[in-house]
Amino acid sequence: MRILVIGATGLVGGAAADALEAYGDEVLRASRSSALAVDLTDAASITALFERVASVDAVVSAVGSVPFKPLAELTGEDYLSAYRGKVAAQVDVVRIGTAHVTDGGSLTLTTGILAREPIRTGAAAALANGALESFVISAAAELPRGLRVNAVSPTVLTEATGYHAFFPGFPPVSAADVGQAFVRSVHGVQTGQVFAL
Amino acid sequence: MRILVIGATGLVGGAAADALEAYGDEVLRASRSSALAVDLTDAASITALFERVASVDAVVSAVGSVPFKPLAELTGEDYLSAYRGKVAAQVDVVRIGTAHVTDGGSLTLTTGILAREPIRTGAAAALANGALESFVISAAAELPRGLRVNAVSPTVLTEATGYHAFFPGFPPVSAADVGQAFVRSVHGVQTGQVFAL
Repeated sequence: MRILVIGATGLVGGAAADALEAYGDEVLRASRSSALAVDLTDAASITALFERVASVDAVVSAVGSVPFKPLAELTGEDYLSAYRGKVAAQVDVVRIGTAHVTDGGSLTLTTGILAREPIRTGAAAALANGALESFVISAAAELPRGLRVNAVSPTVLTEATGYHAFFPGFPPVSAADVGQAFVRSVHGVQTGQVFAL
Repeated sequence: MRILVIGATGLVGGAAADALEAYGDEVLRASRSSALAVDLTDAASITALFERVASVDAVVSAVGSVPFKPLAELTGEDYLSAYRGKVAAQVDVVRIGTAHVTDGGSLTLTTGILAREPIRTGAAAALANGALESFVISAAAELPRGLRVNAVSPTVLTEATGYHAFFPGFPPVSAADVGQAFVRSVHGVQTGQVFAL
């Protein structure tokens, strides 16, 4: 399969790209800083990216910037920034990318454990993850041409040591295992699913 | 208890207000068109409402305007409108209202079954409901002074006959039963919970 991975320079996106390549796929790696460049906060930039790749069999989105602050310090602008940086960015990948995915192909988004488990400073991230997971359930039912959409929703990654202190007692998961969840979404048959790990 | 119900002229908010009054509470009914007026798309208006009521033992928010359109027709502006009209509106009730709730009091938001079940034209509504349900899980863990926050997440209401065609085979729930879920959230001990019915 020919697969576009957006956010490929990140830990999760890189793991997805590596796992899909190991599975035998041709992977096009896009990110803000890649030769295949995209700014996901700009719908015109997403449109330009999809026009450039023309057609793919699957899209993986592993992006999302959200503010982490104590609940009492989160402002209306912070929540809006989480919405724009993670929710709208990935909804736009589905909205704009759908027409560029071949019949029976798939789109896979990235959410995270904060959709279902709280940590301190995580309220805006939780909001963003929960929004995307419910969106995936609904969007899956209305996609055309046998297209599928899922979300991979990992806990903190083993390799993301800078975040471990925020997740006390949460068993981390390896980037390699997270990568396999993307392989499962892309090459499997499920749709409207949240792959939690 | 002295309880502020925002969105009290709606079916869900009215049911919450009636159920709480029947339980013996003093209910202050606010809405866009009430004497106790508020525009939830305007943070300054929410601030003014809470300054007017000064202090309450609980807040119920039963508001949220979201666009319903086929997935292929939902624009970036439509999703943003769902965010502003339902997510930001209710997050602002928590964000601004927290300081006006007495120690050990509660805030209860309203979401809906589209967070977990798809219907046609429901993707933006799903996104909004999912965002709020995950927000509630996270916010509950960081509220001060023993405050609690929950969401009531109903399926289609028996009385909302105009919506029944969009929910084929979904057993409707009565407004009276939905009202009891708010009584359970306000007078119970749970926090960070989604009361699905």
